[in-house]
Amino acid sequence: MTNMNDQMMDMMSMTMPGTDMKMMQECMEACSAAEQAAIMCADASSGDNMGRMMSMCMNTADMTNTMMRMMMRPMAHDMTTMMSMLEATMTMCRACAAECMTMADVSDHATMCAQVCTNCADACEALMGSMRTTSSV
Amino acid sequence: MTNMNDQMMDMMSMTMPGTDMKMMQECMEACSAAEQAAIMCADASSGDNMGRMMSMCMNTADMTNTMMRMMMRPMAHDMTTMMSMLEATMTMCRACAAECMTMADVSDHATMCAQVCTNCADACEALMGSMRTTSSV
Amino acid sequence: MTNMNDQMMDMMSMTMPGTDMKMMQECMEACSAAEQAAIMCADASSGDNMGRMMSMCMNTADMTNTMMRMMMRPMAHDMTTMMSMLEATMTMCRACAAECMTMADVSDHATMCAQVCTNCADACEALMGSMRTTSSV
Amino acid sequence: MTNMNDQMMDMMSMTMPGTDMKMMQECMEACSAAEQAAIMCADASSGDNMGRMMSMCMNTADMTNTMMRMMMRPMAHDMTTMMSMLEATMTMCRACAAECMTMADVSDHATMCAQVCTNCADACEALMGSMRTTSSV
Repeated sequence: MTNMNDQMMDMMSMTMPGTDMKMMQECMEACSAAEQAAIMCADASSGDNMGRMMSMCMNTADMTNTMMRMMMRPMAHDMTTMMSMLEATMTMCRACAAECMTMADVSDHATMCAQVCTNCADACEALMGSMRTTSSV
Repeated sequence: MTNMNDQMMDMMSMTMPGTDMKMMQECMEACSAAEQAAIMCADASSGDNMGRMMSMCMNTADMTNTMMRMMMRPMAHDMTTMMSMLEATMTMCRACAAECMTMADVSDHATMCAQVCTNCADACEALMGSMRTTSSV
Repeated sequence: MTNMNDQMMDMMSMTMPGTDMKMMQECMEACSAAEQAAIMCADASSGDNMGRMMSMCMNTADMTNTMMRMMMRPMAHDMTTMMSMLEATMTMCRACAAECMTMADVSDHATMCAQVCTNCADACEALMGSMRTTSSV
Repeated sequence: MTNMNDQMMDMMSMTMPGTDMKMMQECMEACSAAEQAAIMCADASSGDNMGRMMSMCMNTADMTNTMMRMMMRPMAHDMTTMMSMLEATMTMCRACAAECMTMADVSDHATMCAQVCTNCADACEALMGSMRTTSSV
């Protein structure tokens, strides 16, 4: 993200007092990277037996973009909704990473996409963990 | 959907034997209608105290579009991922409908959006129910 | 679209006096159908020599969704922006239809997608034509 | 973008020999930043007279995301389609920046969004310029 957008993030933090903003920003960036990696991996997936990976990457791209946008809308912030979308995004990213790993031998795009998706799943899981802690206090 | 797309849906059913295709098609159409209603409701939401509704409608529009696209990709079909995204979409649509209802007195768009979102949440819930039954057999 | 959304469309017409609302609604529906057909066609495109079609279908899906959303936001309505996006969407849909036709022998999805994309390109062209007439008065 | 995605970009350059990849990568990053700024600006736009800005920001977010995705799909690359979408995105970003500037006195989000949108419009214009030069050779 640009420095400009970092400033917007700072302004956002004032409106979401219960949320770990550093962790949320990491999750936004991980979602953005996963969307981009999945778009490029899907585009490069026209070989034999790559149909399922291509299709899962398209799902991942749409879900991570939607997840990122939700985090960027503090006005609509709602813990329950956010948690269920984080859960869904984490599940999709893990499934996509597993499928991409089956193509790691034949596609460098798939190898990299698997890593970026795993990173995104981890970021979603970490953010969910911090939210559970906050909400149980 | 056009008749053309109905034919494509028929072809899809061959690749997803365990799924109630009629229920899934209803869910796709409910998602498409919810995306459209939420886009129009957000656009019309520039009055006092409408900021939260506007923002929730944008989340709903992005989630229902993503949900619809996932159902239209049988190659990537995976029960676990589908269930978690149906859960997230249902949760978002119910929250959005509740928020829209608080504006029902002042906005016809909000009244209608609440109904279309409730319909979408119901369709997601019904599809999840049918999947649970299938997978437990 | 549902009857509910038809009513929202009627309310919209009051805010866009210079636009042929019937033609715009046809264009919205054509965009929605093209997005859906292109998503399903891309998903089914994992065979030999189908990489380019798959990728063009994904572009078409994203562009037609964006075009539909723009038409559903009368608050942001601006003739110049609308015309340039209609031009871009028409261009993409024609290119996608041409690519899909090269696969018509081997894929029923591609045959149908080509027709739905051509229909969308025609709807964009017709709406642009009506806008040029209005703006030149 | 992550270093991982930079590597994917390098692989992409092999498949698009006629394109200035450095300029295209700058345009992708500018589109990604514009999407994020516009999402956050729209979310913060619930005050008086902000309805048009909010709605234009949502159009900008959808168009810049679509533009970025198109550039990330070299398989579908087509000069005519790319040029018309770059033109549409540039037009939208300039209109959005102008609207945001009218709110600069009352909204820091709007001031920043205007800058990020202008930057994106400039990046689209520069890339179009380089493509015109290449195609005329």
